[in-house]
Amino acid sequence: MPSPRTVRPGLAELTERLGILYGGDYNPEQWTPEIWAEDARLMQDAGVNLASVGIFSWASLEPEPGRFTFGWLEQVIDLLADHGVAIDLATPTASPPPWLGHRWPDTLPVTAEGVRLGWGSRNHYCPSSPVYRERSRLIVAELLRRFGDHPAVAMWHVGNEYGTPCYCDQCAVGFRGWLQARYQDLDALNAAWGTAFWSQRYSEWAEIIPPRQAPYLINPSQQLDFHRFVSDLLLEGYLEQRSMIIDANPLVPVTTNLMRFYWGADYRTWAPHLDVIADDVYPDPNDPRSIVEASLTSDLMRSLGHTDDGQRGWMLLEQAAGAVNWRGHNVAKSVRRTRLESLRAIGRGAGGSCYFQWRASTAGTERFHAALVPHAGEDSDRWRAHLAHGQELKALSPAVQDEEVTAEVAMIFDWDSWWAAEEPAVPSNRLKPLEQLQAWYTPLWRAGVTADIVASTADLSGYRVVLAPTAYLLTDDATANLQNFVAAGGTLVLGPFSGVADSNGHVRRGRFPVDLTDVIGASGEQWLPLPDAHEVVVTSELLGDGPVRVWSEQLRAEGAEIIATFAGWPVDGLPAVVRNDYQQGTAWYLATLPEDAWLAQLITAVLDEAGVRPVLAELPDQVEAVRRGELVFVINHKVEDVVVTVPGRWRDLLTDTLVGDQLELPGEDVAVLRPIDGGEE
Amino acid sequence: MPSPRTVRPGLAELTERLGILYGGDYNPEQWTPEIWAEDARLMQDAGVNLASVGIFSWASLEPEPGRFTFGWLEQVIDLLADHGVAIDLATPTASPPPWLGHRWPDTLPVTAEGVRLGWGSRNHYCPSSPVYRERSRLIVAELLRRFGDHPAVAMWHVGNEYGTPCYCDQCAVGFRGWLQARYQDLDALNAAWGTAFWSQRYSEWAEIIPPRQAPYLINPSQQLDFHRFVSDLLLEGYLEQRSMIIDANPLVPVTTNLMRFYWGADYRTWAPHLDVIADDVYPDPNDPRSIVEASLTSDLMRSLGHTDDGQRGWMLLEQAAGAVNWRGHNVAKSVRRTRLESLRAIGRGAGGSCYFQWRASTAGTERFHAALVPHAGEDSDRWRAHLAHGQELKALSPAVQDEEVTAEVAMIFDWDSWWAAEEPAVPSNRLKPLEQLQAWYTPLWRAGVTADIVASTADLSGYRVVLAPTAYLLTDDATANLQNFVAAGGTLVLGPFSGVADSNGHVRRGRFPVDLTDVIGASGEQWLPLPDAHEVVVTSELLGDGPVRVWSEQLRAEGAEIIATFAGWPVDGLPAVVRNDYQQGTAWYLATLPEDAWLAQLITAVLDEAGVRPVLAELPDQVEAVRRGELVFVINHKVEDVVVTVPGRWRDLLTDTLVGDQLELPGEDVAVLRPIDGGEE
Amino acid sequence: MPSPRTVRPGLAELTERLGILYGGDYNPEQWTPEIWAEDARLMQDAGVNLASVGIFSWASLEPEPGRFTFGWLEQVIDLLADHGVAIDLATPTASPPPWLGHRWPDTLPVTAEGVRLGWGSRNHYCPSSPVYRERSRLIVAELLRRFGDHPAVAMWHVGNEYGTPCYCDQCAVGFRGWLQARYQDLDALNAAWGTAFWSQRYSEWAEIIPPRQAPYLINPSQQLDFHRFVSDLLLEGYLEQRSMIIDANPLVPVTTNLMRFYWGADYRTWAPHLDVIADDVYPDPNDPRSIVEASLTSDLMRSLGHTDDGQRGWMLLEQAAGAVNWRGHNVAKSVRRTRLESLRAIGRGAGGSCYFQWRASTAGTERFHAALVPHAGEDSDRWRAHLAHGQELKALSPAVQDEEVTAEVAMIFDWDSWWAAEEPAVPSNRLKPLEQLQAWYTPLWRAGVTADIVASTADLSGYRVVLAPTAYLLTDDATANLQNFVAAGGTLVLGPFSGVADSNGHVRRGRFPVDLTDVIGASGEQWLPLPDAHEVVVTSELLGDGPVRVWSEQLRAEGAEIIATFAGWPVDGLPAVVRNDYQQGTAWYLATLPEDAWLAQLITAVLDEAGVRPVLAELPDQVEAVRRGELVFVINHKVEDVVVTVPGRWRDLLTDTLVGDQLELPGEDVAVLRPIDGGEE
Repeated sequence: MPSPRTVRPGLAELTERLGILYGGDYNPEQWTPEIWAEDARLMQDAGVNLASVGIFSWASLEPEPGRFTFGWLEQVIDLLADHGVAIDLATPTASPPPWLGHRWPDTLPVTAEGVRLGWGSRNHYCPSSPVYRERSRLIVAELLRRFGDHPAVAMWHVGNEYGTPCYCDQCAVGFRGWLQARYQDLDALNAAWGTAFWSQRYSEWAEIIPPRQAPYLINPSQQLDFHRFVSDLLLEGYLEQRSMIIDANPLVPVTTNLMRFYWGADYRTWAPHLDVIADDVYPDPNDPRSIVEASLTSDLMRSLGHTDDGQRGWMLLEQAAGAVNWRGHNVAKSVRRTRLESLRAIGRGAGGSCYFQWRASTAGTERFHAALVPHAGEDSDRWRAHLAHGQELKALSPAVQDEEVTAEVAMIFDWDSWWAAEEPAVPSNRLKPLEQLQAWYTPLWRAGVTADIVASTADLSGYRVVLAPTAYLLTDDATANLQNFVAAGGTLVLGPFSGVADSNGHVRRGRFPVDLTDVIGASGEQWLPLPDAHEVVVTSELLGDGPVRVWSEQLRAEGAEIIATFAGWPVDGLPAVVRNDYQQGTAWYLATLPEDAWLAQLITAVLDEAGVRPVLAELPDQVEAVRRGELVFVINHKVEDVVVTVPGRWRDLLTDTLVGDQLELPGEDVAVLRPIDGGEE
Repeated sequence: MPSPRTVRPGLAELTERLGILYGGDYNPEQWTPEIWAEDARLMQDAGVNLASVGIFSWASLEPEPGRFTFGWLEQVIDLLADHGVAIDLATPTASPPPWLGHRWPDTLPVTAEGVRLGWGSRNHYCPSSPVYRERSRLIVAELLRRFGDHPAVAMWHVGNEYGTPCYCDQCAVGFRGWLQARYQDLDALNAAWGTAFWSQRYSEWAEIIPPRQAPYLINPSQQLDFHRFVSDLLLEGYLEQRSMIIDANPLVPVTTNLMRFYWGADYRTWAPHLDVIADDVYPDPNDPRSIVEASLTSDLMRSLGHTDDGQRGWMLLEQAAGAVNWRGHNVAKSVRRTRLESLRAIGRGAGGSCYFQWRASTAGTERFHAALVPHAGEDSDRWRAHLAHGQELKALSPAVQDEEVTAEVAMIFDWDSWWAAEEPAVPSNRLKPLEQLQAWYTPLWRAGVTADIVASTADLSGYRVVLAPTAYLLTDDATANLQNFVAAGGTLVLGPFSGVADSNGHVRRGRFPVDLTDVIGASGEQWLPLPDAHEVVVTSELLGDGPVRVWSEQLRAEGAEIIATFAGWPVDGLPAVVRNDYQQGTAWYLATLPEDAWLAQLITAVLDEAGVRPVLAELPDQVEAVRRGELVFVINHKVEDVVVTVPGRWRDLLTDTLVGDQLELPGEDVAVLRPIDGGEE
Repeated sequence: MPSPRTVRPGLAELTERLGILYGGDYNPEQWTPEIWAEDARLMQDAGVNLASVGIFSWASLEPEPGRFTFGWLEQVIDLLADHGVAIDLATPTASPPPWLGHRWPDTLPVTAEGVRLGWGSRNHYCPSSPVYRERSRLIVAELLRRFGDHPAVAMWHVGNEYGTPCYCDQCAVGFRGWLQARYQDLDALNAAWGTAFWSQRYSEWAEIIPPRQAPYLINPSQQLDFHRFVSDLLLEGYLEQRSMIIDANPLVPVTTNLMRFYWGADYRTWAPHLDVIADDVYPDPNDPRSIVEASLTSDLMRSLGHTDDGQRGWMLLEQAAGAVNWRGHNVAKSVRRTRLESLRAIGRGAGGSCYFQWRASTAGTERFHAALVPHAGEDSDRWRAHLAHGQELKALSPAVQDEEVTAEVAMIFDWDSWWAAEEPAVPSNRLKPLEQLQAWYTPLWRAGVTADIVASTADLSGYRVVLAPTAYLLTDDATANLQNFVAAGGTLVLGPFSGVADSNGHVRRGRFPVDLTDVIGASGEQWLPLPDAHEVVVTSELLGDGPVRVWSEQLRAEGAEIIATFAGWPVDGLPAVVRNDYQQGTAWYLATLPEDAWLAQLITAVLDEAGVRPVLAELPDQVEAVRRGELVFVINHKVEDVVVTVPGRWRDLLTDTLVGDQLELPGEDVAVLRPIDGGEE
């Protein structure tokens, strides 16, 4: 893959010109010109300044192979531009027209069970297919020929939500090529996959296949590499189009839309190739945990969006303006919460808050997905709220433009560790890295402490505290990185089932966490998933007692201080948490999954000791606080009103009122506080 | 499709000649001639007057392609006829012989995942297959050549439980043909399916395929049309054979057996082509709700069986004489309940009560399905009860022959609305039209009020009250029909998520129920499936308070009286039930799913206001009452004895005893009451 | 199939030479020569005397077709032999190299849905494939050429855990051949499968296929025969290799490893062809029932291992030295329980206690499966325990060598009855023969009574009591066998849903249990799975009252004494348990599934009456006692210490201490008591 250009236009440039981005996906091929005109007017009324257009337009732009009908799109783009709306122009390659699969069945993806999938939905393409790739290049070239220099095009949107894997023979060829590039010779691959076991040794490259349905569990290293390959293959498809766009016009940022902590692609390897980090995020209003998870996702995206030149940035490219339609039971965000979630993203650094989609479809699979213009039309509470929010964001834009979110805490999360730890045949499928990340993030969120989400090999020197909830797979470099961080004075908290596997997913031999036992001053013999029928607790002089679940380990202190001890069969009396001074820093190790309250106490103790301070102390339950530069966003997720202690004197930029010490915040409302210096009153 | 003949022989003609039909499926190919003789004797003993023969006889009648062995069937038919048993003769095309799939694999059905199914079970045919259809015509022609004029053949039974869909290439061709007939040109289809969304626009007919497995959710209008196509395709197969039979002998009624509220075929479009509505019904004795559901099914079948000339009628063609075998845990009906369910059907208008099957199989998949002659043989309580019941029905026949069930209440249920509302990606998959129909039917049943189950476009002029629990898809004609019904003085109760979609399944734009907001005097902005974590109730001066679940809507009264109001987040204070006087009539709208008791109060209030009176007032719990002409059937579903208030003087035709005011009814027993005029005593 | 040789070397010969076998699967292809040397040393330290080698070595032995690399294996075998370790040498045919499936796709298995499975796992072969079979013979021949006479090879291990079924066309051909051998002519097959029903009559052999995915439930007799065929097909593959080995060297025992009560193969038909019964057993430490189930499995294996000449015997060939990795949540056995389970097997007659595997893998699917040498290495509690246990077994060997387990009780369990009773479309899928066997075994276990697990056609003359918990399918011979057993003075307890089906799985006509009603003095009309909503109990003067679940029957006493009666709808007042004197013996019949305590009382009453005495009376909860010749093994499954009453004077061979009347047994500990005769003190 080509390395990304180092200087590229990004989100900073866009928001400087347009303010906070506000708008949504616009799929005009669904509507008549009369509705286009109405839409343009309504967008202008609501202060919409960005529309993502053309995402699903392939069949409308090229109704038959080689016959192009671009007139309608030019008309729409010009109309929107005339109403002050910039265009995020999509390449339409996420959903090929029916003629592609009909004429070239090899372009269709194949499941692990060997089913060649049909069209009538979307994402029905094999990412390796030469024909699909060629046809994609043709339509992109055509788009660029017409819109490459169009002044209204402010951003390019390549494909959509990259993600569908394929197990076909074309992908098998691609997989082999990827493996050859990685391992050079077959002996290295056989070693990396441990094929000596179960008689899986490959004698020629041609024998290697994707992990298709097999009689029993499939080689875990093969599966790990297939995850990596699919991520890289999808990225390759993206990069092919990105290069064409940059060649045609190097001045417009190029991106694609990510999907939170998406299992199917390693966004860390993608981020350098995106000029803007654009995320699609759909917290489930029916799941109380989604409140915290959405902030965690924002922090991930902000971390992916960080560049030294400050250009890249991040934004919400898709969110729901009410309910989604693809869950079984689709509870809607209230009107107030819809606004709240937009402001929350701004608080966590977002430069834009856009929606899927502008106008509610009447047909197709997403006909019940909320939109800025609902089925009910302008005579609706929803529309009136969207109008007001657009004005609000416009007013807020200057104040947030140059303010950045910074963090003293980092949390480690690696995609390949996630993949490897969730394969079948691990000690327990009840221990899941993403759930652990969420569990450890929650006390930070509650305490009003912001965290970056980074790779285990990231530069950690700027952080006081690094949390690694389940760092299952650690490369040699990552192990050294963590060790150096502690040696240099940092505080590391390492969670259970960490330091287990190497880069191939092989279990390291020796007492665990291998190569980090000196750092934590302890070592482990075995992982011990807990029996369901026994209650186990941890007891601690420092932190009190608390129940634990799912997991324990047989640990032996070797110099570390024992902070907490297990009570209960089968680990009665064994250390559960240890703390060790290592060179200039401190390392903690946690050998179990405590319940939330106890975990919160542990993490609070770590933060206190490390001198990390919250944005606001003593936050009420379900109230979130995040600092963006000098601004403090205070967010009340409860339905009820709350009073929040905000020492000092502030101006709430949303209500333009003065606030002193006590902030009265209605249910599902937000305040954006700017400190008042001596000059204001 | 050919239009059905307007004058056809039906059930009325059969029952006039034979009395109430009593008997069952007889599969004599399983047995020896010695057992045939025993069976004939036992049938005569039990008063059996109808046997369905030949349903699964293809392989026995045509053991190799073109070689026919009909002798055994002639022998059986003659033997039964000699013992007073009329024959419902089946075409055996529901289960082709192994040689069909073996020689012509294209005759086998293919799943949406592309699996070509094997034989060894039944229903293993593609309904589009030219070879299957040709071979079916050949065996039917042969049957007609031999039995077309046989005097014992009283009815023809085409195929069996039509239902298996197929996704093969032959069906794709058929689907395209069906679509061409419906839409004429491709632009119309593209509009009807909303293919502008997700780049699904078809550029030629050949690109259209059935909704096969795809990477993600499939176009809902495509799926809706595929449901319609499959129903029509199966009907076409039926009609092909029906025409052959009518050509051979126009004097014998032709039918096939239906399966309750069957998802896979729109029985409304089938009913005009059946000379007798014949239903297979298997209430689960392990499910207490099945008691009410079986009555609902009877009411559907009676409604389908209604014709102006009174000929068609309906009957139970299959029910279990004890336990079925195809559920996981097969609880048996008691001996008493077996009789009760037979009499209940008679009470709801049935002209016959037959069973699957006559004699219990010893081999094959149905070897544990109950039968009139059980494995235990004649020395069994079951057999003794079946003997007695046959005599009882014979005695009852003259009294019920000319008595008809009539209803003042209609309930709306449309198959395409059901299909459309249960597609993926709707607001909530917890709101199901059939469950709503059952929920609203239950208070009617408990109150002793009989309902017809009709289409939204049916002639409603004869009803006082029309209930439409979830009329999701309403065509323009249906909307006008409901409006006219109210305008003319009727009372309509419209349930949640009604008036949403048009005939293509597209969501209508505007406040809902679109085109009916004037009628209900209110309009809605959004559907709001309820969050799991919040308790929501409705409060009402008229009806008291009650909990609701799953669903709410954001409604605004526009002239209507607010009958009940939501209390609880997120709909606190919004209208939940409204009532509106519209021209000569009244419309109610209900925006949620109340718990049973509150819903019962609402529906009782509606019935009272509209002047609908029950068959018997103050029925004890689990006691059913239904009027068939002058007769009142009183059915005690409890195991315990009850006393039922029956004002007046009656004769119970089953016990031949006089009843005055108070009826003592043992557990699981039935009374058939005829009012005593002055003449009797 | 050839009949097995009557005189073969077996386990007795091995243990006489080597003592109790102790060791594990050794997969040296995973490791370097340096580690081989370390392994040899560690094995010697631990007293390991047997290693199973080569199970997954095909790709390492034949990296390309026809190119053999046996040097490493010779080196390993010689090295182990030099350290006192005998070799259980495997044929590597359970996991073919990737080149086999790549070059010959027909060697890959096909699912019932038609998916041809891939490699990358194991067991990826079609057992019918001529190419697979030929390639298997070639590698086995090569192995025999080199190691057929190697003095270190003490046993041959053919394949591994035979089990994968296949539905491909090659298997269809094989299935037809098997059926032709069984039925000779097609009419007999049509009769045996009841193909007259559902039009399934076959007109030529070529029409018969395996029970592949079909539109609905598949013929049960076809499925039953397919189970039998698959078991025989797998056995045929085993026998092909076994014959080659015996031809090469008749003096070394040949076996393969069984898998407990394995659904996929009828081990009764396999056992005569195994020189040693070798079992793989993995009780789930997270499931409290697994304690008893593991003893039941031991009793099955001991029964399979019984031969008149005492040669065959049984051993644990695989067990976990801690946790497995293939469950979702893998709780580990504690160190103490790991030892306990080994000794428990010895107590129930095992001649060896071996493990999967010797050294923990670092790669591959089993990388988290425990091993004798754990990832943590020698500095681990596990390793120290394994060292000690090896010495302990060596010390115990002379004492157990000639001691045999005998039983006065037999339990009936037939594979084809299990298959037939668990097919779809039986009265209830909640009644499962294996669960019934476990439920009835549990009170025996608790009471300290040992049972053999035998076929319904076994010689029962040596037993006082025979328990048949659910003898669904009984051949005519089996029925006569049970009748003769009672007639001759035995006590039979027959459970519900017994005596139902004949050898083809056809339901026998007449009142059940057909042909055994005289023996039990009662007969039944119908099986009545219980409704969920009703509580039913049994009441008994002899045994008190107790709840029952799932199942009841309509029974009529015809001479038998009614021991217990149902109370509760729908069987109120019907007999639940009857007892009948029949000729010299006694038969009990139980028509329901009682809760554990009541069932235990019933079985205790039966045992008392029949004069069966426990090994030790009044055992504490969770304490197991089993007699092996003159030795009594007392096993404390609790974590807490217990005191066990052991009347008399004993020596505990494990602690070498004297015990009198009261045995103090720590948690998870075992005592092996030898009675002290007058001579010792």
